[in-house]
Amino acid sequence: MAKIEIKILQNLLQANDAKAAEIRALLQQKKILMLNLISSPGSGKTTLLEKTLPLLKEKYRVAVIEGDVETAKDAERLEKCNVPIALINTSGACHLESISIAKAFSALDLNNLDIIFVENVGNLVCPAEFDIGEDYKIALVSTPEGEDKPIKYPLLFREAALVLLNKIDLIEHLNFDRDAFYHDIDKIHRGIPIIETSCKNKSGFAEWLAWIEEKITEKKM
Amino acid sequence: MAKIEIKILQNLLQANDAKAAEIRALLQQKKILMLNLISSPGSGKTTLLEKTLPLLKEKYRVAVIEGDVETAKDAERLEKCNVPIALINTSGACHLESISIAKAFSALDLNNLDIIFVENVGNLVCPAEFDIGEDYKIALVSTPEGEDKPIKYPLLFREAALVLLNKIDLIEHLNFDRDAFYHDIDKIHRGIPIIETSCKNKSGFAEWLAWIEEKITEKKM
Repeated sequence: MAKIEIKILQNLLQANDAKAAEIRALLQQKKILMLNLISSPGSGKTTLLEKTLPLLKEKYRVAVIEGDVETAKDAERLEKCNVPIALINTSGACHLESISIAKAFSALDLNNLDIIFVENVGNLVCPAEFDIGEDYKIALVSTPEGEDKPIKYPLLFREAALVLLNKIDLIEHLNFDRDAFYHDIDKIHRGIPIIETSCKNKSGFAEWLAWIEEKITEKKM
Repeated sequence: MAKIEIKILQNLLQANDAKAAEIRALLQQKKILMLNLISSPGSGKTTLLEKTLPLLKEKYRVAVIEGDVETAKDAERLEKCNVPIALINTSGACHLESISIAKAFSALDLNNLDIIFVENVGNLVCPAEFDIGEDYKIALVSTPEGEDKPIKYPLLFREAALVLLNKIDLIEHLNFDRDAFYHDIDKIHRGIPIIETSCKNKSGFAEWLAWIEEKITEKKM
């Protein structure tokens, strides 16, 4: 790549990081916890939110920023949860950037929120490269994708604060090597918590909710 | 985005397209069929190749260009198939470009090949945007990802010449809406063939091999 091209890409990333820092400062001031959900397409991000939002809503004021290449499909699925939703259509772009998040904020009442979930575009590669001002990135990976995803796409697992191994109910029908999965993640990001979840039978949900509670309590301190 | 940035991105895409055109002309001259496999991470591209290569090898000279963000994991898995493999590590980039394919060609004997499979980086978004000089893009989607993937990530399904609905053996354990899947694809790309495959029990493999045979026969004419 020519030097001028590299320079311009660096500028774009710097602009993204600067806006992300502004967002982070604003969320700190408002004491809002923002969680950035990242996974392959079809790992279960939307379903996880469908099952999680009703449980959190009892205690916290929650909103969702929904990132999608096109369509409002996921936002429509979440409407029945009856929480504020801001939809970002990326017009083909494969990840969310901080500038879009800042725009989405204008559709939310930040004086009246405890938690914002960001459902990133379904993509295990690019979203991990962009700071959107979140408190934590959460990596979802589902059992049918295979145990080798962390080692093959390590950046996300390095950047994340939590791994959800989702669709754990399907594991009996698969040749999923659990030991290799845990071993690889330990190599990439020692000590990162891993919670095995099923949105079908809600296994792991107590742990998942406890993790969120811990983080929101820290934020409110 | 500033005008100069747009201009530079356009230049990058034009350089990619120019190299793709060169590749296409070379493959035409050598009568080699090149198939570009694109899917989310974990849809089963490598396993499909593991099961397909031994069957094709009986009749055709086959090679694989293996695209991965980092690691040689998939290339190592395919080594036992005993076909020429050229590995491209993209160093974090989320898709293959034609320049990398041209470089990978130098590791292959193009005078001694009938078919090249390109296993693209696992990503349902970006690889569809880059012409690498292939004859056909093939979209894989696996049943656990859900029936809504084509409508949510339509570009690939518009660009592809064939859809493989993989891991069909798992469908009985899922709430996969087959009608919606077929209906959506028909809306996006009317008439595109869809083959339901399982790498576990090889269902759909006769049809998949017949599709490849038809394309290689056309190419050799």
